Amino acid sequence: MRRTRRTVLAGLGTVAIGGGTVLATGAFDTVEADRSVDIETASDDTALLGLEILSETLSGADEAVIEFDLDTLNVSATTEFEDALAITNNGEREVTVSIRDGSDELLDADGAPMAFDHDDLASGETSIELGIEQTAKLDVSFDVTTSDPDEDIGIPETITIVAETDEE
Amino acid sequence: MRRTRRTVLAGLGTVAIGGGTVLATGAFDTVEADRSVDIETASDDTALLGLEILSETLSGADEAVIEFDLDTLNVSATTEFEDALAITNNGEREVTVSIRDGSDELLDADGAPMAFDHDDLASGETSIELGIEQTAKLDVSFDVTTSDPDEDIGIPETITIVAETDEE
Amino acid sequence: MRRTRRTVLAGLGTVAIGGGTVLATGAFDTVEADRSVDIETASDDTALLGLEILSETLSGADEAVIEFDLDTLNVSATTEFEDALAITNNGEREVTVSIRDGSDELLDADGAPMAFDHDDLASGETSIELGIEQTAKLDVSFDVTTSDPDEDIGIPETITIVAETDEE
Repeated sequence: MRRTRRTVLAGLGTVAIGGGTVLATGAFDTVEADRSVDIETASDDTALLGLEILSETLSGADEAVIEFDLDTLNVSATTEFEDALAITNNGEREVTVSIRDGSDELLDADGAPMAFDHDDLASGETSIELGIEQTAKLDVSFDVTTSDPDEDIGIPETITIVAETDEE
Repeated sequence: MRRTRRTVLAGLGTVAIGGGTVLATGAFDTVEADRSVDIETASDDTALLGLEILSETLSGADEAVIEFDLDTLNVSATTEFEDALAITNNGEREVTVSIRDGSDELLDADGAPMAFDHDDLASGETSIELGIEQTAKLDVSFDVTTSDPDEDIGIPETITIVAETDEE
Repeated sequence: MRRTRRTVLAGLGTVAIGGGTVLATGAFDTVEADRSVDIETASDDTALLGLEILSETLSGADEAVIEFDLDTLNVSATTEFEDALAITNNGEREVTVSIRDGSDELLDADGAPMAFDHDDLASGETSIELGIEQTAKLDVSFDVTTSDPDEDIGIPETITIVAETDEE
Protein backbone atom coordinates (compact mmCIF):
# COMPACT_ATOMS: atom_id res chain seq x y z
CA MET A 1 0.00 0.00 0.00
CA ARG A 2 1.44 3.36 -1.19
CA ARG A 3 1.80 5.66 1.70
CA THR A 4 -0.69 8.36 0.76
CA ARG A 5 -1.56 11.11 3.13
CA ARG A 6 -5.01 9.60 3.45
CA THR A 7 -3.56 6.30 4.28
CA VAL A 8 -1.38 7.83 6.84
CA LEU A 9 -4.33 9.65 8.31
CA ALA A 10 -6.37 6.49 8.37
CA GLY A 11 -3.50 4.80 10.01
CA LEU A 12 -3.32 7.64 12.46
CA GLY A 13 -7.06 7.42 13.00
CA THR A 14 -6.86 3.82 13.75
CA VAL A 15 -4.12 4.57 16.06
CA ALA A 16 -6.18 7.32 17.58
CA ILE A 17 -9.26 5.15 17.99
CA GLY A 18 -7.67 1.82 18.77
CA GLY A 19 -5.31 3.59 20.92
CA GLY A 20 -3.36 1.33 22.97
CA THR A 21 -4.71 -1.71 21.31
CA VAL A 22 -2.99 -1.12 18.00
CA LEU A 23 0.17 0.20 19.51
CA ALA A 24 -0.12 -2.21 22.45
CA THR A 25 2.89 -4.34 22.91
CA GLY A 26 0.16 -7.05 23.17
CA ALA A 27 -1.52 -8.40 26.28
CA PHE A 28 -4.65 -10.24 27.32
CA ASP A 29 -7.69 -8.58 28.92
CA THR A 30 -8.56 -11.32 31.25
CA VAL A 31 -6.50 -13.91 32.84
CA GLU A 32 -8.16 -16.43 34.95
CA ALA A 33 -5.84 -18.79 36.78
CA ASP A 34 -6.70 -21.40 39.32
CA ARG A 35 -3.97 -21.83 41.86
CA SER A 36 -3.97 -24.51 44.46
CA VAL A 37 -4.15 -23.73 48.14
CA ASP A 38 -2.99 -26.54 50.30
CA ILE A 39 -3.27 -25.40 53.86
CA GLU A 40 -3.46 -27.94 56.61
CA THR A 41 -3.54 -27.55 60.29
CA ALA A 42 -1.52 -29.40 62.82
CA SER A 43 -2.08 -30.21 66.43
CA ASP A 44 -0.51 -27.97 69.03
CA ASP A 45 2.60 -30.06 69.45
CA THR A 46 3.76 -29.63 65.85
CA ALA A 47 2.07 -26.45 64.68
CA LEU A 48 3.86 -23.17 63.86
CA LEU A 49 3.39 -22.15 67.50
CA GLY A 50 4.25 -25.40 69.16
CA LEU A 51 2.53 -25.95 72.49
CA GLU A 52 2.79 -28.87 74.87
CA ILE A 53 1.90 -29.34 78.50
CA LEU A 54 4.60 -31.60 79.95
CA SER A 55 2.98 -32.09 83.33
CA GLU A 56 0.51 -34.96 83.31
CA THR A 57 -1.13 -33.60 86.43
CA LEU A 58 -1.83 -30.24 84.77
CA SER A 59 -2.73 -31.50 81.33
CA GLY A 60 -6.24 -32.12 80.05
CA ALA A 61 -7.26 -34.98 77.81
CA ASP A 62 -7.42 -33.21 74.46
CA GLU A 63 -4.71 -34.55 72.21
CA ALA A 64 -4.81 -31.88 69.53
CA VAL A 65 -5.11 -28.71 71.58
CA ILE A 66 -3.52 -28.14 74.97
CA GLU A 67 -5.73 -27.42 77.93
CA PHE A 68 -4.91 -26.89 81.57
CA ASP A 69 -7.05 -29.20 83.65
CA LEU A 70 -6.80 -29.82 87.40
CA ASP A 71 -9.46 -30.13 90.07
CA THR A 72 -7.38 -30.88 93.17
CA LEU A 73 -5.39 -27.70 93.61
CA ASN A 74 -4.66 -27.01 97.29
CA VAL A 75 -6.40 -24.00 98.84
CA SER A 76 -4.40 -21.67 101.03
CA ALA A 77 -1.17 -22.74 99.33
CA THR A 78 1.21 -22.08 96.46
CA THR A 79 1.69 -24.81 93.90
CA GLU A 80 4.35 -24.84 91.23
CA PHE A 81 4.81 -27.06 88.19
CA GLU A 82 8.32 -26.73 86.92
CA ASP A 83 8.99 -26.93 83.16
CA ALA A 84 5.33 -27.63 82.66
CA LEU A 85 4.56 -25.76 79.43
CA ALA A 86 6.83 -26.22 76.42
CA ILE A 87 6.56 -23.57 73.72
CA THR A 88 8.36 -24.27 70.45
CA ASN A 89 8.98 -21.91 67.56
CA ASN A 90 8.30 -24.01 64.47
CA GLY A 91 8.35 -20.99 62.25
CA GLU A 92 11.21 -19.57 60.26
CA ARG A 93 11.87 -16.35 62.07
CA GLU A 94 12.67 -15.50 65.64
CA VAL A 95 9.57 -14.75 67.71
CA THR A 96 8.67 -13.02 70.94
CA VAL A 97 6.27 -15.02 73.07
CA SER A 98 3.97 -13.64 75.71
CA ILE A 99 1.02 -15.02 77.63
CA ARG A 100 -1.97 -12.89 78.54
CA ASP A 101 -5.29 -12.96 80.32
CA GLY A 102 -7.07 -10.05 78.68
CA SER A 103 -4.68 -7.18 79.32
CA ASP A 104 -2.82 -8.90 82.18
CA GLU A 105 0.60 -10.31 81.39
CA LEU A 106 0.94 -13.76 82.94
CA LEU A 107 4.65 -14.31 82.20
CA ASP A 108 6.67 -13.31 85.25
CA ALA A 109 3.43 -12.36 87.00
CA ASP A 110 4.91 -13.23 90.38
CA GLY A 111 2.27 -14.09 92.96
CA ALA A 112 -0.67 -13.90 90.61
CA PRO A 113 -3.34 -16.63 90.92
CA MET A 114 -1.82 -18.16 87.76
CA ALA A 115 1.62 -17.20 86.53
CA PHE A 116 4.30 -18.39 84.14
CA ASP A 117 8.02 -18.09 84.58
CA HIS A 118 11.31 -19.01 82.97
CA ASP A 119 14.84 -19.15 84.32
CA ASP A 120 16.12 -16.81 81.60
CA LEU A 121 13.42 -14.27 82.23
CA ALA A 122 14.79 -11.07 83.70
CA SER A 123 12.86 -9.25 86.38
CA GLY A 124 10.20 -7.08 84.83
CA GLU A 125 10.27 -8.82 81.48
CA THR A 126 6.96 -10.28 80.36
CA SER A 127 7.99 -12.06 77.17
CA ILE A 128 10.64 -14.42 75.95
CA GLU A 129 12.55 -14.71 72.69
CA LEU A 130 12.45 -17.96 70.79
CA GLY A 131 14.83 -18.62 67.95
CA ILE A 132 13.95 -20.88 65.06
CA GLU A 133 13.09 -24.37 66.27
CA GLN A 134 13.90 -23.35 69.82
CA THR A 135 11.82 -24.58 72.75
CA ALA A 136 11.27 -22.79 76.04
CA LYS A 137 9.93 -24.68 79.03
CA LEU A 138 7.92 -22.48 81.34
CA ASP A 139 7.15 -23.02 84.99
CA VAL A 140 3.47 -22.69 85.85
CA SER A 141 2.55 -21.58 89.35
CA PHE A 142 -0.68 -21.06 91.26
CA ASP A 143 -1.16 -18.93 94.34
CA VAL A 144 -4.41 -19.61 96.15
CA THR A 145 -5.03 -17.26 99.04
CA THR A 146 -8.49 -18.41 100.06
CA SER A 147 -9.12 -21.34 102.39
CA ASP A 148 -12.56 -21.96 100.95
CA PRO A 149 -12.61 -24.53 98.10
CA ASP A 150 -15.85 -23.06 96.78
CA GLU A 151 -14.55 -19.53 96.48
CA ASP A 152 -13.44 -18.12 93.14
CA ILE A 153 -9.65 -18.13 93.09
CA GLY A 154 -9.13 -15.67 90.28
CA ILE A 155 -7.57 -18.06 87.79
CA PRO A 156 -8.56 -17.19 84.21
CA GLU A 157 -10.69 -19.60 82.22
CA THR A 158 -8.72 -18.85 79.07
CA ILE A 159 -5.21 -17.67 78.44
CA THR A 160 -3.91 -16.22 75.20
CA ILE A 161 -0.50 -17.29 74.01
CA VAL A 162 0.99 -14.93 71.45
CA ALA A 163 4.06 -15.34 69.26
CA GLU A 164 5.12 -12.33 67.24
CA THR A 165 8.02 -11.75 64.91
CA ASP A 166 9.88 -8.53 65.38
CA GLU A 167 9.99 -5.56 63.05
CA GLU A 168 12.84 -5.81 60.61
CA MET B 1 7.12 -8.53 24.71
CA ARG B 2 10.51 -8.00 23.23
CA ARG B 3 13.19 -7.91 25.86
CA THR B 4 14.33 -4.40 25.53
CA ARG B 5 17.03 -3.00 27.71
CA ARG B 6 14.39 -0.84 29.34
CA THR B 7 12.33 -3.88 30.28
CA VAL B 8 15.22 -5.67 31.86
CA LEU B 9 16.12 -2.65 33.94
CA ALA B 10 12.52 -2.35 35.11
CA GLY B 11 12.63 -5.97 36.21
CA LEU B 12 15.77 -5.43 38.20
CA GLY B 13 14.27 -2.38 39.76
CA THR B 14 11.44 -4.41 41.24
CA VAL B 15 13.83 -6.81 42.88
CA ALA B 16 15.82 -3.94 44.32
CA ILE B 17 12.79 -2.32 45.93
CA GLY B 18 11.15 -5.49 47.24
CA GLY B 19 14.39 -6.26 49.02
CA GLY B 20 14.18 -8.57 51.98
CA THR B 21 10.48 -9.18 51.73
CA VAL B 22 10.73 -10.83 48.40
CA LEU B 23 13.79 -12.79 49.41
CA ALA B 24 12.50 -13.62 52.92
CA THR B 25 12.30 -17.36 53.70
CA GLY B 26 8.90 -16.43 55.22
CA ALA B 27 7.51 -17.00 58.70
CA PHE B 28 4.29 -16.34 60.56
CA ASP B 29 4.17 -12.82 61.90
CA THR B 30 1.70 -13.45 64.64
CA VAL B 31 0.10 -16.51 66.07
CA GLU B 32 -2.47 -15.88 68.74
CA ALA B 33 -3.97 -18.89 70.45
CA ASP B 34 -6.58 -18.97 73.19
CA ARG B 35 -6.25 -22.04 75.36
CA SER B 36 -8.66 -23.08 78.08
CA VAL B 37 -7.75 -23.26 81.73
CA ASP B 38 -9.98 -25.37 83.97
CA ILE B 39 -8.47 -25.28 87.45
CA GLU B 40 -10.43 -26.01 90.58
CA THR B 41 -9.42 -26.28 94.18
CA ALA B 42 -10.16 -29.03 96.64
CA SER B 43 -10.27 -29.22 100.41
CA ASP B 44 -7.19 -30.46 102.24
CA ASP B 45 -8.30 -34.07 102.48
CA THR B 46 -8.45 -34.61 98.71
CA ALA B 47 -6.11 -31.97 97.27
CA LEU B 48 -2.76 -32.71 95.58
CA LEU B 49 -1.08 -32.43 98.98
CA GLY B 50 -3.56 -34.33 101.09
CA LEU B 51 -3.74 -33.25 104.71
CA GLU B 52 -5.89 -34.58 107.53
CA ILE B 53 -5.69 -34.30 111.30
CA LEU B 54 -6.79 -37.67 112.67
CA SER B 55 -6.86 -36.67 116.30
CA GLU B 56 -10.17 -35.16 117.22
CA THR B 57 -8.60 -33.55 120.27
CA LEU B 58 -6.00 -31.74 118.17
CA SER B 59 -8.21 -30.85 115.24
CA GLY B 60 -9.98 -27.57 114.71
CA ALA B 61 -13.42 -27.14 113.23
CA ASP B 62 -12.57 -26.07 109.69
CA GLU B 63 -13.61 -28.77 107.30
CA ALA B 64 -11.78 -27.55 104.23
CA VAL B 65 -8.41 -26.63 105.69
CA ILE B 66 -6.71 -28.39 108.59
CA GLU B 67 -5.90 -26.45 111.70
CA PHE B 68 -4.36 -27.51 114.97
CA ASP B 69 -6.60 -26.35 117.78
CA LEU B 70 -6.24 -27.17 121.46
CA ASP B 71 -6.59 -24.99 124.52
CA THR B 72 -6.09 -27.55 127.31
CA LEU B 73 -2.49 -28.60 126.79
CA ASN B 74 -0.84 -29.54 130.08
CA VAL B 75 1.92 -27.25 131.34
CA SER B 76 5.09 -28.75 132.66
CA ALA B 77 4.43 -31.91 130.67
CA THR B 78 5.02 -33.66 127.36
CA THR B 79 1.97 -34.57 125.32
CA GLU B 80 2.02 -36.80 122.29
CA PHE B 81 -0.62 -37.55 119.70
CA GLU B 82 0.31 -40.69 117.79
CA ASP B 83 -0.60 -40.92 114.08
CA ALA B 84 -2.29 -37.56 114.37
CA LEU B 85 -1.44 -35.94 111.04
CA ALA B 86 -2.01 -37.90 107.84
CA ILE B 87 -0.21 -36.60 104.76
CA THR B 88 -1.14 -38.13 101.42
CA ASN B 89 0.58 -37.72 98.06
CA ASN B 90 -2.26 -37.27 95.56
CA GLY B 91 0.12 -36.20 92.81
CA GLU B 92 1.71 -38.29 90.10
CA ARG B 93 5.32 -38.33 91.20
CA GLU B 94 7.10 -39.25 94.38
CA VAL B 95 7.56 -36.35 96.77
CA THR B 96 9.68 -35.36 99.73
CA VAL B 97 7.67 -33.87 102.59
CA SER B 98 8.97 -31.57 105.28
CA ILE B 99 7.38 -29.37 107.92
CA ARG B 100 8.83 -26.02 108.90
CA ASP B 101 8.36 -23.11 111.20
CA GLY B 102 10.25 -20.42 109.34
CA SER B 103 13.70 -21.96 109.01
CA ASP B 104 13.22 -24.54 111.80
CA GLU B 105 12.56 -28.10 110.73
CA LEU B 106 9.75 -29.58 112.83
CA LEU B 107 10.00 -33.17 111.55
CA ASP B 108 12.16 -35.16 113.95
CA ALA B 109 12.64 -32.02 116.03
CA ASP B 110 12.96 -34.06 119.17
CA GLY B 111 12.08 -32.09 122.30
CA ALA B 112 10.97 -28.96 120.51
CA PRO B 113 7.81 -27.23 121.80
CA MET B 114 6.00 -28.73 118.79
CA ALA B 115 7.49 -31.60 116.82
CA PHE B 116 6.50 -34.21 114.27
CA ASP B 117 7.80 -37.72 114.00
CA HIS B 118 7.39 -40.92 112.04
CA ASP B 119 8.45 -44.49 112.73
CA ASP B 120 10.33 -44.72 109.45
CA LEU B 121 12.20 -41.50 110.06
CA ALA B 122 15.88 -42.13 110.63
CA SER B 123 17.67 -40.10 113.24
CA GLY B 124 18.77 -36.77 111.82
CA GLU B 125 16.40 -36.90 108.87
CA THR B 126 13.93 -34.04 108.64
CA SER B 127 11.82 -35.17 105.70
CA ILE B 128 9.97 -38.24 104.51
CA GLU B 129 9.43 -39.75 101.08
CA LEU B 130 5.91 -40.36 99.86
CA GLY B 131 5.23 -42.48 96.82
CA ILE B 132 2.22 -41.90 94.59
CA GLU B 133 -1.01 -42.16 96.56
CA GLN B 134 0.93 -43.09 99.68
CA THR B 135 -0.07 -41.80 103.12
CA ALA B 136 2.22 -41.17 106.08
CA LYS B 137 0.78 -40.74 109.55
CA LEU B 138 2.88 -38.49 111.69
CA ASP B 139 3.03 -38.28 115.46
CA VAL B 140 2.63 -34.78 116.84
CA SER B 141 4.23 -33.97 120.18
CA PHE B 142 4.33 -30.97 122.47
CA ASP B 143 6.94 -30.30 125.13
CA VAL B 144 5.92 -27.61 127.59
CA THR B 145 8.64 -26.74 130.04
CA THR B 146 6.96 -23.87 131.86
CA SER B 147 4.54 -24.36 134.74
CA ASP B 148 2.81 -21.07 134.03
CA PRO B 149 -0.24 -21.40 131.73
CA ASP B 150 0.04 -17.74 130.76
CA GLU B 151 3.62 -17.98 129.63
CA ASP B 152 4.44 -18.24 125.92
CA ILE B 153 5.36 -21.85 125.27
CA GLY B 154 7.15 -21.33 121.99
CA ILE B 155 4.71 -23.22 119.78
CA PRO B 156 4.47 -21.60 116.32
CA GLU B 157 1.20 -20.03 115.22
CA THR B 158 1.68 -21.31 111.69
CA ILE B 159 3.52 -24.27 110.29
CA THR B 160 4.48 -24.70 106.63
CA ILE B 161 4.05 -28.13 105.09
CA VAL B 162 6.05 -28.59 101.90
CA ALA B 163 5.94 -31.37 99.32
CA GLU B 164 8.59 -31.32 96.60
CA THR B 165 9.35 -33.67 93.77
CA ASP B 166 12.97 -34.54 93.26
CA GLU B 167 15.23 -33.43 90.44
CA GLU B 168 15.21 -35.79 87.52
CA MET C 1 7.21 -25.97 57.27
CA ARG C 2 8.57 -28.73 55.11
CA ARG C 3 9.93 -31.62 57.09
CA THR C 4 13.47 -31.60 55.86
CA ARG C 5 16.06 -33.92 57.22
CA ARG C 6 17.53 -31.02 59.10
CA THR C 7 14.21 -30.35 60.76
CA VAL C 8 13.76 -33.91 61.85
CA LEU C 9 17.20 -34.02 63.41
CA ALA C 10 16.53 -30.80 65.28
CA GLY C 11 13.38 -32.35 66.67
CA LEU C 12 15.29 -35.37 67.87
CA GLY C 13 17.85 -33.08 69.40
CA THR C 14 15.25 -31.55 71.62
CA VAL C 15 14.16 -34.93 72.92
CA ALA C 16 17.71 -35.94 73.70
CA ILE C 17 18.49 -32.80 75.62
CA GLY C 18 15.21 -32.56 77.43
CA GLY C 19 15.70 -36.11 78.55
CA GLY C 20 13.52 -37.03 81.42
CA THR C 21 11.72 -33.76 81.42
CA VAL C 22 10.16 -34.11 78.00
CA LEU C 23 9.01 -37.62 78.64
CA ALA C 24 8.19 -37.01 82.31
CA THR C 25 4.73 -37.99 83.36
CA GLY C 26 4.70 -34.60 85.09
CA ALA C 27 3.45 -33.86 88.57
CA PHE C 28 3.17 -30.94 90.92
CA ASP C 29 6.68 -29.96 91.69
CA THR C 30 6.09 -28.04 94.87
CA VAL C 31 3.13 -27.47 97.09
CA GLU C 32 3.69 -25.17 100.01
CA ALA C 33 0.86 -24.79 102.48
CA ASP C 34 0.77 -22.67 105.63
CA ARG C 35 -1.54 -24.10 108.26
CA SER C 36 -2.52 -22.43 111.51
CA VAL C 37 -1.63 -23.77 114.94
CA ASP C 38 -3.66 -22.49 117.87
CA ILE C 39 -2.39 -24.29 120.96
CA GLU C 40 -2.85 -22.97 124.47
CA THR C 41 -2.04 -24.44 127.82
CA ALA C 42 -4.28 -24.77 130.84
CA SER C 43 -3.65 -25.20 134.52
CA ASP C 44 -3.68 -28.71 135.95
CA ASP C 45 -7.30 -28.66 137.02
CA THR C 46 -8.68 -28.20 133.49
CA ALA C 47 -5.92 -29.51 131.21
CA LEU C 48 -6.16 -32.67 129.11
CA LEU C 49 -4.77 -34.66 132.03
CA GLY C 50 -6.74 -33.09 134.82
CA LEU C 51 -4.96 -33.09 138.19
CA GLU C 52 -6.14 -31.76 141.50
CA ILE C 53 -5.04 -32.35 145.09
CA LEU C 54 -8.21 -32.38 147.13
CA SER C 55 -6.50 -32.51 150.47
CA GLU C 56 -5.58 -29.04 151.68
CA THR C 57 -3.07 -30.56 154.08
CA LEU C 58 -1.23 -32.29 151.27
CA SER C 59 -1.49 -29.55 148.72
CA GLY C 60 1.12 -26.92 147.91
CA ALA C 61 0.44 -23.32 147.02
CA ASP C 62 0.85 -23.38 143.26
CA GLU C 63 -2.49 -22.77 141.66
CA ALA C 64 -1.61 -23.81 138.15
CA VAL C 65 0.39 -26.96 138.81
CA ILE C 66 -0.27 -29.45 141.63
CA GLU C 67 2.42 -30.08 144.15
CA PHE C 68 2.48 -32.32 147.20
CA ASP C 69 3.61 -30.22 150.12
CA LEU C 70 3.73 -31.32 153.78
CA ASP C 71 6.34 -30.80 156.42
CA THR C 72 4.70 -32.43 159.46
CA LEU C 73 4.45 -36.07 158.47
CA ASN C 74 4.70 -38.43 161.45
CA VAL C 75 7.73 -40.63 161.73
CA SER C 76 7.33 -44.26 162.61
CA ALA C 77 3.73 -44.16 161.38
CA THR C 78 1.49 -44.69 158.36
CA THR C 79 -0.50 -41.74 157.14
CA GLU C 80 -3.27 -41.92 154.59
CA PHE C 81 -5.15 -39.22 152.73
CA GLU C 82 -8.29 -40.73 151.24
CA ASP C 83 -9.52 -39.37 147.87
CA ALA C 84 -6.68 -36.89 147.94
CA LEU C 85 -5.62 -36.83 144.30
CA ALA C 86 -8.31 -36.40 141.66
CA ILE C 87 -7.32 -37.37 138.13
CA THR C 88 -9.70 -36.44 135.33
CA ASN C 89 -9.64 -37.51 131.68
CA ASN C 90 -10.38 -34.31 129.75
CA GLY C 91 -9.39 -35.90 126.47
CA GLU C 92 -11.56 -37.59 123.86
CA ARG C 93 -10.46 -41.17 124.26
CA GLU C 94 -10.33 -43.59 127.16
CA VAL C 95 -6.97 -43.58 128.94
CA THR C 96 -4.93 -45.78 131.24
CA VAL C 97 -3.37 -43.87 134.12
CA SER C 98 -0.29 -44.88 136.07
CA ILE C 99 2.01 -43.14 138.51
CA ARG C 100 5.75 -43.77 138.59
CA ASP C 101 8.91 -42.85 140.35
CA GLY C 102 11.50 -43.71 137.73
CA SER C 103 10.77 -47.36 137.06
CA ASP C 104 8.84 -47.94 140.27
CA GLU C 105 5.07 -48.10 140.00
CA LEU C 106 3.45 -46.11 142.80
CA LEU C 107 -0.17 -47.11 142.14
CA ASP C 108 -1.08 -50.03 144.39
CA ALA C 109 2.45 -49.95 145.75
CA ASP C 110 1.20 -51.23 149.06
CA GLY C 111 3.58 -50.35 151.88
CA ALA C 112 5.89 -48.15 149.86
CA PRO C 113 7.04 -44.86 151.43
CA MET C 114 4.58 -43.09 149.13
CA ALA C 115 1.80 -44.98 147.41
CA PHE C 116 -1.45 -44.39 145.61
CA ASP C 117 -4.53 -46.55 145.69
CA HIS C 118 -8.05 -46.76 144.39
CA ASP C 119 -11.04 -48.82 145.49
CA ASP C 120 -11.51 -50.24 142.00
CA LEU C 121 -7.91 -51.24 141.70
CA ALA C 122 -7.50 -54.98 141.68
CA SER C 123 -4.60 -56.56 143.47
CA GLY C 124 -1.48 -56.47 141.33
CA GLU C 125 -2.82 -53.84 138.95
CA THR C 126 -0.73 -50.70 138.73
CA SER C 127 -2.94 -48.56 136.50
CA ILE C 128 -6.55 -47.48 136.25
CA GLU C 129 -8.84 -46.88 133.29
CA LEU C 130 -10.51 -43.52 132.86
CA GLY C 131 -13.30 -43.00 130.37
CA ILE C 132 -13.90 -39.66 128.68
CA GLU C 133 -14.51 -36.95 131.26
CA GLN C 134 -14.28 -39.49 134.04
CA THR C 135 -12.55 -38.67 137.36
CA ALA C 136 -10.80 -41.08 139.68
CA LYS C 137 -10.01 -40.04 143.23
CA LEU C 138 -6.92 -41.75 144.52
CA ASP C 139 -5.88 -42.34 148.09
CA VAL C 140 -2.37 -41.21 148.92
CA SER C 141 -0.53 -43.01 151.69
CA PHE C 142 2.82 -42.61 153.40
CA ASP C 143 4.61 -45.33 155.32
CA VAL C 144 7.46 -43.99 157.46
CA THR C 145 9.46 -46.72 159.10
CA THR C 146 12.19 -44.67 160.66
CA SER C 147 11.85 -42.92 164.01
CA ASP C 148 14.42 -40.32 163.10
CA PRO C 149 12.94 -37.13 161.52
CA ASP C 150 16.25 -36.30 159.92
CA GLU C 151 16.59 -39.61 158.18
CA ASP C 152 15.69 -39.90 154.50
CA ILE C 153 12.35 -41.64 154.31
CA GLY C 154 12.58 -42.70 150.70
CA ILE C 155 9.78 -40.58 149.34
CA PRO C 156 10.54 -39.45 145.75
CA GLU C 157 11.06 -35.77 145.03
CA THR C 158 9.18 -36.07 141.76
CA ILE C 159 6.46 -38.43 140.64
CA THR C 160 5.48 -38.95 137.01
CA ILE C 161 1.79 -39.25 136.21
CA VAL C 162 1.13 -40.87 132.84
CA ALA C 163 -2.11 -41.14 130.88
CA GLU C 164 -2.05 -43.29 127.75
CA THR C 165 -4.74 -44.23 125.27
CA ASP C 166 -4.89 -47.86 124.31
CA GLU C 167 -3.98 -49.40 120.95
CA GLU C 168 -6.93 -49.45 118.60
